[in-house]
Amino acid sequence: MTGTVLADGLLADGRHADLRIEGGRIAEVGKMSSAAGAERIDLAGALLVPGLVDGHIHLDKTLLGLPFQSHRPGDTVAERIAREKEIRRELAYPVKERALRLIRRVVGYGTTFLRSHVDIDGEVGLTGLEALLDVRESVRDVIGIELVAFPQSGIIADQGTAELLDEAIRAGADLVGGLDPAGIDNDIEGHLGVIFAIAERHGVGCDIHLHDPGDLGCFELRQIAARAEALGLAGRVAVSHAFALGEVDDAEFGRTAEALARAGVAIMTNGPGPVAMPPIKRLDAAGVLVFAGSDNIRDAWSPYGNGDMLERAMLIGYRQGLRADEDLELCFDLANGAAASVLGLDDHDIRPGAAADLVALPAASIAEAVAVHPPRSLVMKRGRVVARDGTLTASLRI
Amino acid sequence: MTGTVLADGLLADGRHADLRIEGGRIAEVGKMSSAAGAERIDLAGALLVPGLVDGHIHLDKTLLGLPFQSHRPGDTVAERIAREKEIRRELAYPVKERALRLIRRVVGYGTTFLRSHVDIDGEVGLTGLEALLDVRESVRDVIGIELVAFPQSGIIADQGTAELLDEAIRAGADLVGGLDPAGIDNDIEGHLGVIFAIAERHGVGCDIHLHDPGDLGCFELRQIAARAEALGLAGRVAVSHAFALGEVDDAEFGRTAEALARAGVAIMTNGPGPVAMPPIKRLDAAGVLVFAGSDNIRDAWSPYGNGDMLERAMLIGYRQGLRADEDLELCFDLANGAAASVLGLDDHDIRPGAAADLVALPAASIAEAVAVHPPRSLVMKRGRVVARDGTLTASLRI
Repeated sequence: MTGTVLADGLLADGRHADLRIEGGRIAEVGKMSSAAGAERIDLAGALLVPGLVDGHIHLDKTLLGLPFQSHRPGDTVAERIAREKEIRRELAYPVKERALRLIRRVVGYGTTFLRSHVDIDGEVGLTGLEALLDVRESVRDVIGIELVAFPQSGIIADQGTAELLDEAIRAGADLVGGLDPAGIDNDIEGHLGVIFAIAERHGVGCDIHLHDPGDLGCFELRQIAARAEALGLAGRVAVSHAFALGEVDDAEFGRTAEALARAGVAIMTNGPGPVAMPPIKRLDAAGVLVFAGSDNIRDAWSPYGNGDMLERAMLIGYRQGLRADEDLELCFDLANGAAASVLGLDDHDIRPGAAADLVALPAASIAEAVAVHPPRSLVMKRGRVVARDGTLTASLRI
Repeated sequence: MTGTVLADGLLADGRHADLRIEGGRIAEVGKMSSAAGAERIDLAGALLVPGLVDGHIHLDKTLLGLPFQSHRPGDTVAERIAREKEIRRELAYPVKERALRLIRRVVGYGTTFLRSHVDIDGEVGLTGLEALLDVRESVRDVIGIELVAFPQSGIIADQGTAELLDEAIRAGADLVGGLDPAGIDNDIEGHLGVIFAIAERHGVGCDIHLHDPGDLGCFELRQIAARAEALGLAGRVAVSHAFALGEVDDAEFGRTAEALARAGVAIMTNGPGPVAMPPIKRLDAAGVLVFAGSDNIRDAWSPYGNGDMLERAMLIGYRQGLRADEDLELCFDLANGAAASVLGLDDHDIRPGAAADLVALPAASIAEAVAVHPPRSLVMKRGRVVARDGTLTASLRI
């Protein structure tokens, strides 16, 4: 026998199994009485799940690892964008170094794929993207990274950004982002027109930040769904946050959820603190794919966050009042299967042929893993152990 | 020099100081160039704060340390009370053992005082209280415990409970509890009449669970305030949860907050997930004392919770959208000075003469401590080190 055997893992369905890993993939799932010739790692009954997937993070924004930064308040989103630019100008630490610090942390938590937004604006241009493209390449054996070109200062409001977004896709960004077409750009048609034209021109997907509230936000969601449907972008368009879905009456919610489901538009939530959040069980029942992300981690926007997607799943469940096992399993899926599907990963599973991106942790069930979110005992990326007991063991260099 | 010197602690105001501890109290705060004769513990600049105080926990309910229990859902509070009774009957582990497991955990997190509610009803009678009275005695050198006789099944609805509550106070409970006078007992006057009669008869305070919503809940809060004021119980009455304060309009909020402030009634919050919560900054501005507690920790009511009061302070800040340093300091105070004041501790501070109940942790400020809630490096109770690096070092026996 060749490769590596992960022995005695507890699978989500309650079975204990051994996994044989070869060439970065799961070769065999079953009972392997002997592993002569194969390296054997005994999981001693630890829960074994596919790697966690962070569907929304900002690798270029984090200040994690630097001396704690006091938050600089701003009353409006525009004011807070201005505060962030101040901090960015003062920072001595480049994007690469900060991104690597955060990657080191999230790999320890078992994240094997992530989608990062990266600021594109008239001030930084593509410099943040270029830094993260380098980072992506240098860490590819440790974590998979998808990059969204994110117009943090607006598109219409920040002249020249439309062209920069187009350039960003040509430079290697995977998706085109957006931000509050009404709230930031005061031009829903104009903002979405730019984004979807770029998506169509380059054959890429979109992931749009939407904080706009209530009926306005839901109107924008339906506009996004209509454009996604017209361009045949089912499964390739996501809206992040979409607080509006938690703020409207049943009729408005139903109409909007139906449009999202029909167009194959996914919704990302981080389980926000003070605002309404998308009702994940109702969206799931309506056929809308919901996935999870960390969002801000110790940056100009928030002093909170640590990048642990199991803790994030817990927070989402806590915020939604979910307690039953099956509901905690749904929360887990937001940060696993659902997010993997949004990222277009069709081999993110525990079965022969799937990628050997795996996490082991001391829990007797998925529900316990979410509620307790204990330290990860082992993290494997493409068949190689990259972290043990919460700490990166692979080397990261750039 | 005698006693123990905690050297080079970072105080909340940014000063570095040494503390000399003697006879369980802080004898001196300053710069001690030599500590000949005294045991010296070098804090190496770690943040040094008074012990954390958990203002609301249920030591008798926790299932922590047992195999993970799947949540048994119930649609109403009454149904969930019934589910809890089922679990309680099936449990092989006695209250003492479960309470000790939780105490072991919370001491590692730096909690040096807590207020625990304990179920009193027709089925368990005073058995839970008797168990916790024994536990309190056996752990008194490690953690201080205050006990509230809690009518989890109601007072009017559960005949005989009024007498049991009276008996509980005579047996050693420190406060008399209550639960949703309208929602559970359908008799606001009757329920509060029993509680405040016991409080008056025995000269004890009250701590009442109140989940009743909106205008109804606020009406009950004002009824409680009126009774507290009439009996001169300022500073000795608390209401736990009080979601209603987060659900009403400005006029109703203002009227209710004014009544609470005038009567000296404190409000406890755990930063609930799916429901409205009391607006802590508005209450603070209105002169209402707000404090924090864990509430349910892995029990029949919730699979969540771990007993970490710094993480709880973070969760409260996250739920309220608080980010600035001064706001995070308010969250910290909820689980420290404010809760200590509710528990009647007048020596919970860092100054000569104060109790040597102290926690050291790797953070450069209170704001960082709340946002990051790193493991506690050292916990001291009455001058004795009881935990290091998150783990209890004192022995607990019963």
